[in-house]
Amino acid sequence: MSWQRPDGRQRDQLRPIRFEHNFTKHAAGSVLAECGDTHVLCTVSIQEKVPRWLQDQGQGWLTAEYRMLPSSTHDRKQREFMKLSGRTQEIQRLIGRSLRSTLDMNLLGERTLLIDADVLQADGGTRTTAITGSFVALQDAIAQLMDQGLLETSPLIHQVAAISVGLIEGETYLDLDYIEDVKADIDFNVVMNEAGGIIEAQGTAEAGSFSRSQLNQIMDTAEAGIQTLMQLQKN
Amino acid sequence: MSWQRPDGRQRDQLRPIRFEHNFTKHAAGSVLAECGDTHVLCTVSIQEKVPRWLQDQGQGWLTAEYRMLPSSTHDRKQREFMKLSGRTQEIQRLIGRSLRSTLDMNLLGERTLLIDADVLQADGGTRTTAITGSFVALQDAIAQLMDQGLLETSPLIHQVAAISVGLIEGETYLDLDYIEDVKADIDFNVVMNEAGGIIEAQGTAEAGSFSRSQLNQIMDTAEAGIQTLMQLQKN
Amino acid sequence: MSWQRPDGRQRDQLRPIRFEHNFTKHAAGSVLAECGDTHVLCTVSIQEKVPRWLQDQGQGWLTAEYRMLPSSTHDRKQREFMKLSGRTQEIQRLIGRSLRSTLDMNLLGERTLLIDADVLQADGGTRTTAITGSFVALQDAIAQLMDQGLLETSPLIHQVAAISVGLIEGETYLDLDYIEDVKADIDFNVVMNEAGGIIEAQGTAEAGSFSRSQLNQIMDTAEAGIQTLMQLQKN
Amino acid sequence: MSWQRPDGRQRDQLRPIRFEHNFTKHAAGSVLAECGDTHVLCTVSIQEKVPRWLQDQGQGWLTAEYRMLPSSTHDRKQREFMKLSGRTQEIQRLIGRSLRSTLDMNLLGERTLLIDADVLQADGGTRTTAITGSFVALQDAIAQLMDQGLLETSPLIHQVAAISVGLIEGETYLDLDYIEDVKADIDFNVVMNEAGGIIEAQGTAEAGSFSRSQLNQIMDTAEAGIQTLMQLQKN
Amino acid sequence: MSWQRPDGRQRDQLRPIRFEHNFTKHAAGSVLAECGDTHVLCTVSIQEKVPRWLQDQGQGWLTAEYRMLPSSTHDRKQREFMKLSGRTQEIQRLIGRSLRSTLDMNLLGERTLLIDADVLQADGGTRTTAITGSFVALQDAIAQLMDQGLLETSPLIHQVAAISVGLIEGETYLDLDYIEDVKADIDFNVVMNEAGGIIEAQGTAEAGSFSRSQLNQIMDTAEAGIQTLMQLQKN
Amino acid sequence: MSWQRPDGRQRDQLRPIRFEHNFTKHAAGSVLAECGDTHVLCTVSIQEKVPRWLQDQGQGWLTAEYRMLPSSTHDRKQREFMKLSGRTQEIQRLIGRSLRSTLDMNLLGERTLLIDADVLQADGGTRTTAITGSFVALQDAIAQLMDQGLLETSPLIHQVAAISVGLIEGETYLDLDYIEDVKADIDFNVVMNEAGGIIEAQGTAEAGSFSRSQLNQIMDTAEAGIQTLMQLQKN
Repeated sequence: MSWQRPDGRQRDQLRPIRFEHNFTKHAAGSVLAECGDTHVLCTVSIQEKVPRWLQDQGQGWLTAEYRMLPSSTHDRKQREFMKLSGRTQEIQRLIGRSLRSTLDMNLLGERTLLIDADVLQADGGTRTTAITGSFVALQDAIAQLMDQGLLETSPLIHQVAAISVGLIEGETYLDLDYIEDVKADIDFNVVMNEAGGIIEAQGTAEAGSFSRSQLNQIMDTAEAGIQTLMQLQKN
Repeated sequence: MSWQRPDGRQRDQLRPIRFEHNFTKHAAGSVLAECGDTHVLCTVSIQEKVPRWLQDQGQGWLTAEYRMLPSSTHDRKQREFMKLSGRTQEIQRLIGRSLRSTLDMNLLGERTLLIDADVLQADGGTRTTAITGSFVALQDAIAQLMDQGLLETSPLIHQVAAISVGLIEGETYLDLDYIEDVKADIDFNVVMNEAGGIIEAQGTAEAGSFSRSQLNQIMDTAEAGIQTLMQLQKN
Repeated sequence: MSWQRPDGRQRDQLRPIRFEHNFTKHAAGSVLAECGDTHVLCTVSIQEKVPRWLQDQGQGWLTAEYRMLPSSTHDRKQREFMKLSGRTQEIQRLIGRSLRSTLDMNLLGERTLLIDADVLQADGGTRTTAITGSFVALQDAIAQLMDQGLLETSPLIHQVAAISVGLIEGETYLDLDYIEDVKADIDFNVVMNEAGGIIEAQGTAEAGSFSRSQLNQIMDTAEAGIQTLMQLQKN
Repeated sequence: MSWQRPDGRQRDQLRPIRFEHNFTKHAAGSVLAECGDTHVLCTVSIQEKVPRWLQDQGQGWLTAEYRMLPSSTHDRKQREFMKLSGRTQEIQRLIGRSLRSTLDMNLLGERTLLIDADVLQADGGTRTTAITGSFVALQDAIAQLMDQGLLETSPLIHQVAAISVGLIEGETYLDLDYIEDVKADIDFNVVMNEAGGIIEAQGTAEAGSFSRSQLNQIMDTAEAGIQTLMQLQKN
Repeated sequence: MSWQRPDGRQRDQLRPIRFEHNFTKHAAGSVLAECGDTHVLCTVSIQEKVPRWLQDQGQGWLTAEYRMLPSSTHDRKQREFMKLSGRTQEIQRLIGRSLRSTLDMNLLGERTLLIDADVLQADGGTRTTAITGSFVALQDAIAQLMDQGLLETSPLIHQVAAISVGLIEGETYLDLDYIEDVKADIDFNVVMNEAGGIIEAQGTAEAGSFSRSQLNQIMDTAEAGIQTLMQLQKN
Repeated sequence: MSWQRPDGRQRDQLRPIRFEHNFTKHAAGSVLAECGDTHVLCTVSIQEKVPRWLQDQGQGWLTAEYRMLPSSTHDRKQREFMKLSGRTQEIQRLIGRSLRSTLDMNLLGERTLLIDADVLQADGGTRTTAITGSFVALQDAIAQLMDQGLLETSPLIHQVAAISVGLIEGETYLDLDYIEDVKADIDFNVVMNEAGGIIEAQGTAEAGSFSRSQLNQIMDTAEAGIQTLMQLQKN
C-alpha cells in the first residue's frame, strides 16, 4: 500500500497557492508567496547600476539572496553569520540563474534587479516557492519600471516556475511538504519556462538511487505541476 | 509656526497600532506588530536550557535578536554579515533588557526565551515597535507554556511598552515616522512598565542639546503614549 | 541606613581627577585621564581627508574608537577580535557623538579627527572618563593645528564632560566606582555642555525601575558633577 | 555543420583517463586522477571518531573538501579565505553525497573518512574527475583498513563515477574540456553507480533551455561514459 | 665617513632604559618598559588552568600577545581586527618562546602566565623592549605568587633580555631607533640568557646581504648590550 | 655516542634533491621540488600590474603564498580558513623576502610575480624546500618572459637557496627530516646567495640555548649544503 499524504492530497496535486501583491511598500515588487504552509516574502529592488565586470556593456543584471528567518522553522534556526551554509548558497544561486533566464538583459539596460527571498514560515519547498514567487514579484517590478517610463519595452521574454517532486517508496509525489521531504529517498527540483523548456533539473538521492524510467515519471509530474503554477502566476 | 506632521497627527498622537497574533505557526509567540507603516515580526521561541553561565541556578533567561530585512527600507539595505552594526547591537540589547524586566526568572525556570524582531517594513520607530510587539508575543508564549502545563504560575510580573519622542523646532512630537525622525534634533526612546516605572530612557542630541525643562516635556509625552499602548497590548 | 561608599566619599563627590597632557608623543593630542583608579589614554590623531560620503563639502569629521587593554580589568579580559561587543560599539558611538557636538565642522575643514580611548586600568566609569578626557585631548589637538597655522579660527564651539550617576537603595550616588557599579540598580550616564545643555542622557534599570522624581534627582546630581569636571578640564 | 572538438574527439569519447595510486604517502588513499589536462589529487584520510551528532550509533561518516590551487587555472585564482564560494560549497557537498552512497555506514563503524580533492591543474570537469578519482582513493583506503585488520568486511557496497555532458548547438558532447565548457549552453553532471542507478543528476541552462528529448540524449551519453570510467577504476 | 646617530649615541650604546613597576594595579606583574622613546606596557596575568593539550601533566604554560596602540606610531595605525598581520604574529610568538625559556614549567605547576605587551609609544625596537620588559614583569608576578604562598620554589631558572643590532653602511649599530631602523640594510634581533646562551637570533637583509664576519660583529655587539640590560633588569 | 640519522645520512649530507619542471601547465614557472619525502609544488604566476603603493614607479614586485595540503602531513591537518597561523605567515613572508633579493625590480618593470608554494607531502624542511624550489620556478618564469619578448634583460641578479640545520645532542645536522626536526633542540634556517651572502638566518632554541661556537658550526654546515643545492638548481 502506498504513502498516504498528510493533507490527503493526490500524488500529483499541488498545495494551495496564493500570491499577496504589494506585501511591503518600499521594494519595486513585493509578493508574499504561499505554497501551503510555506510562506516566502519575495521582493525585487532596483539599482541603477551594474556590477563592475558588466559596466559599459549596455546590459542589466539580476542577483538573488535567500534566507530563512530564525523562527520560520519548527526548531528555531540560528541566523547565518560570518559564513553562509552550502545549502543557502546553492539556493540563492539557483534562484538567480532561474530568474535571469526570463530576461533580455539588453532590454533591461544598465540596472540591477536584486531579489530577496526571505522565508517567513517553512514547510518544505522553500526554494521552489521562492522561484515561483520571485517571478510574480519580478512581473510587478517590471510593470513599475514601465509605468515610470524607465523602460519602453518589457525585458521579460520568458515565464518561469519551479516545483519539487519526490520519490517515496518508489512512486512520485508532487510538491512535498516538510514531513514528505524527510520521508523521500529522492528529491528533485525542476525549473521550467512557459514553453516547457527545462532551465534547471536537480535530483539528489538521499538514499538508494533512481532509474531512467523513474526520472521520466518525475519529469512528467513536475511538468504538469509547473503548468498549473504558471496559470496562477498570471492572475 | 510649528511643524505640520506628514499624516496630520496631533503632536501627542500615536500612529494606528495593530497586533496580528499567530502570524507564523512554529514559534510559541508570533505577532506582526504594526505602528503606522512600521511592521515588525516579533516571535518568541523557547529553548529548554539556559546559557552556560546560568546553569543549575533554577532561573530562566531571555535574549533578543533584531534585524531589518534588506527590502524593509526605501533604499535596499545590505544584510549584516561578518559584523553587526553598532546600531543593531544597541537595539537588540535594549529589547533584551526591556523584556527581561517583565519576568520573574525564578518562576520561568531553566529555560530561555529567544525573541526575534525582524523588521519587514520600516518607517521610523522600529526599536520601540519591536519592544511593544515583543511583549505581546511574550504574553502569547507564556500562555502557551501554561496551557501545555509546563508552567503553573505565570512569570510575567510586569507589562512593558516603548515609544519615541522627538524635539522638532523645540517642541515635542510623539511616535516619529521616518520623515520626522530625520527632521528631529533630539531623539528620545522611553521604555516604561504598567506602574509608570522607567526601564530605559535614552536621549541623543543629533544637533544642539536639550534642557532640563524639555526633558520633562519629553517624559510627559512619552508617558501618555505608553499608557495608550498598554491598553492596546491587552486586547 | 544608607550605602557607605568604599572610599568614604560624599554621595555627590567626584573621585580625584587628573589629566596628564602629552602622555605620548606622536598624536596631536594625548592625555592620560584619571578618574580615581580608572585610567584612560585619550588621543586625537588627524587625517587630512574625510570619509567618502562627506567629500567635497568643505566639512570635517570626528570619529572614535574605544577599547580596554586585556590587563585593565581584575580578571584579564580577552581582546575583541573578529567581532566587537555590543558594549564596545555603544561606547565608541557615544564618545563620537559627544565630541562631535563640540565642533563646528565647517570651521574644522576637510579633515578627520580620530579619537582613541584606550583603557589602561578600569575601576568603573570608563566611558565617561573617556569622554571627559578626550575633550581635553581635543583642546590640545586643536591648539596644535592653530599653532601650525593649519586653522585660523578654532572650530571648538562647546565644551563637554560626562559623568555617571547610580541609584543604590533608592538614593543617587555620583561617579560610581566598580564596586558601586555592580551594586547599583539604576545606571545613568549624562553628557552635558558648558551651557547645561544635555547632549546624551542614558539610563538603564538593571533591576526594578526608576520614577520621574528619581530621574530629576539623578539629573541634578549629574549636572553639579559635570560643572566641577569642566573647571578641571580648563586647567 | 556541427562543433569540432578541440582535441578531435568523437562526441561520445572520453579524454585519456589515468589514476596514479599512492601519489603521496601519508593519507590512507592517495590518487592523482587525470582526465585529460584536468589533474585532481584525491586523498582519503581516516579519523577514528564521528561527528558529535552521530556519536554512539555504531555508524561511520564520510565528508569531502574541494579546492583549486591558485595556479591550477589559466589566470591565477585567489585562494578562498574567510568565505567559500557557492561553487566550491556545491561541489564539495556533491562529492560527499556521491561517495557516501557507496558505503554501508554500519559496516564502516564509528570512523570518519575525509576526502580532500585538490585540483592541481584545471581544464574542465574538475568536479566529476574529483568524484571518479575519490572513489579510486576510497578503494585504496578501505583496502588498507582491511589489511590492518581494522575492518573485517568491506563497507563498499557500490561503485560510483561521474561525468559531464554538454549541449553545444543542440547536440550532446561527453566530458567537456574548458573551451567546450565555456561554449556549451547546457551543462549536465551525472553521478551513477555500477547498476546504472542515478545518484545525482544536475543540469543547468547557461543560455536557453533544454527539452525532454534532449534530457534523454544527455542521460544516454552520460551512462555510456560512466560505464567506461568504471572499467578504468577497477584496474 | 660613517653614520652619525640622531641622538649622538656611540655605535655600541643603548638608549636610556627605565622600568616602571606596578604601572597598573590588576595584573600580577605590570611594568612600563621604556627604551628611549619606545614605551611598552608589559603585564603578566595568571590563570589557574592550562590549555587543553597540557592538562593533567603537572606543568605550566606561558603565552604572549603583542599589539601597538593606534596612536603609538607617527601616522596612526589601524587596529588589527579580523586578521593579525604576519608581523604581529611573528612578534608575539617570539615573545612567548623567549619568556618560556626562563621557566621550569614543572615548578610553575598547572597555571598559565599570559603576557600582554601593548606598545603605547613606538620608536624602533618594540619587540626587544617587549621581551626585556616582560621579563621584569614576570619577576614581579612570580614574586607575588610566592608571597601569596601559591609557589614555594621559584620556577625562574633563567634571565632573558633582547636587543636589536643593525648594519648601516656596513657597520654595526646597537639598539636602533625608528630612523635608524628604516636606514639599516640588515636588521638583527638577538635574545640571550644570563649565561650568554642564545635563545633566538634572527637576521633579515632588507637590502643586500651580510657576511659571516659581519654576523660575528653583530653577535659581539648584541652580547655586550644584553649584559648591560640584564644589570638594569635586576634593580 | 651520537645521533644515528633515520636514513643513514652523514651529518652534513643532503637528502636526494629533484626538481620536476613544468609540473603544471598554466603558471609561467611550475616546479615540483622534492627534498627527500618533502614535496612542494612551486609556481610563479605573472600579473601585469603592481600593488597600489608601488604604482607608477617603474618597478616590479614579488609576493609569496605558502600552504600545506590537508593530506600532506601524517595526521590530516585542517585547512587554514578565516585566519592564517603565525607559522604560515612567517613562512610566506620569508619566501617573499628571500626571492625578492634575487631580482632587480627596475629591470622587472611594472609587473608582479606571485609565488605559490603548496606542500603536497611534508617530511621536514618545507620552508627551505619552498625557497629553493621557487627559485628554480622563478628562473623558468623569467625565461618565458624573455622568450615572449616581454623582457629584454633578465632581472635575475642573484641565485638563492635555503637549508635547515639542527643541533641534536650538541652536534650539527644538515637538512633535518621530520623525525629529526622533532628531536632537535635548536632549529636553524639559513638563506644564502651564490656569493655566500646571508639573506636570512633564523635560529630558535626549542630547548636550552646555543653558544657562539655552535652558531659558527651551524653556519659552516649550512653554507656547504647551500653550495650543493645551487649546483642542482642550475641543471
